[in-house]
Amino acid sequence: MSGTGLFLTFEGIDGSGKSTQARRLAETLRAAGHDVVLTREPGGSPGAEEIRRLVLEGDPDRWSAETEILLFTAARRDHLERTIEPALAAGRVVICDRFADSTRMYQGLSRGDLRQLVDQLHALMIGREPDLTLLIDMDPETGLSRAKGRQGSEERFEDFGPELQQRMRAGFLDLAREYAHRFRIVDGNRDMDSVAADVTEIALSHLNPPR
Amino acid sequence: MSGTGLFLTFEGIDGSGKSTQARRLAETLRAAGHDVVLTREPGGSPGAEEIRRLVLEGDPDRWSAETEILLFTAARRDHLERTIEPALAAGRVVICDRFADSTRMYQGLSRGDLRQLVDQLHALMIGREPDLTLLIDMDPETGLSRAKGRQGSEERFEDFGPELQQRMRAGFLDLAREYAHRFRIVDGNRDMDSVAADVTEIALSHLNPPR
Repeated sequence: MSGTGLFLTFEGIDGSGKSTQARRLAETLRAAGHDVVLTREPGGSPGAEEIRRLVLEGDPDRWSAETEILLFTAARRDHLERTIEPALAAGRVVICDRFADSTRMYQGLSRGDLRQLVDQLHALMIGREPDLTLLIDMDPETGLSRAKGRQGSEERFEDFGPELQQRMRAGFLDLAREYAHRFRIVDGNRDMDSVAADVTEIALSHLNPPR
Repeated sequence: MSGTGLFLTFEGIDGSGKSTQARRLAETLRAAGHDVVLTREPGGSPGAEEIRRLVLEGDPDRWSAETEILLFTAARRDHLERTIEPALAAGRVVICDRFADSTRMYQGLSRGDLRQLVDQLHALMIGREPDLTLLIDMDPETGLSRAKGRQGSEERFEDFGPELQQRMRAGFLDLAREYAHRFRIVDGNRDMDSVAADVTEIALSHLNPPR
């Protein structure tokens, strides 16, 4: 049996604990015998990581919103072709920290209303949606203070003040309603072990037992 | 008076003399008092030049055709926003060595039939067409031997053998029929001065006298 991998993504505002939960879930599933690929966006393949550096380094305003969307879509296309699709075709579980939903939110909302453009470009060049998306939902104030506590990330979050984080939280919750068939909302305003227990339960309910 | 610049592009197979003719036309128009911006693709703005390096350096197969189209479109969007549109808005003459027609040919034809995808992406993210496109048409054998004579370009042309150059020539001629309102075909199988004289005459017929 092959070709029946599961494509699982984590989404949420900055500081919501997505990356930690993605890593913990990968460890838990591996310990249970699943064959897991843990990856992230932007990046996740050698070419996509180069594009990531091109977009994220230097003056944040050096690319227009539209050019940035094109670059992130190029990175996603490479990531999909080189990392995600081969793993799914081999029947593996792919856990990805952020995917197209983050582009719908950050590029689609933060620099003007470009959501329609993001969706059209996604339909044309990517197409693929995750089988399951775990939205770690949490209070933006808590998320922001967590995010600012992380070394080296201050500059990025300077731009994303509390007001924008609030809009992003609301936007992610709207997205979860729009794509209700694949989204599950997890309450991130709790200790990490409780969040991880929920995440594991949801993920296992979507997985067949390992062979 | 402003906002009435002319957007003029050169297209043709490798070795057709496009770049030389673009440079000569820029010199001729400047000497006649026109305000000219000479640019090229891929590249033409600092961001687009960085994307150009990302695409053209390294293993030519490291990007899929689709990812390459996205990267070239990102470069074109940046070039358009930062170089071409501001110059046209200021009433300048923009002469560009290659533009979207080259993507329609090289990415649209050379790696499978992706012309429809190229067109959809162009409509979504670029939209703009040149006011005038000069197609330097020539025999591919002549073009190839000229191109191979240029230092440092051997590797690139190893991939683009005579058969592909022949298809590209036919493709450019089809494109000139498809966009007949803006294309002018110039016979490139002649000495450079004769070609340049034709190019100058056509360009001047599209330009108002300099102020």
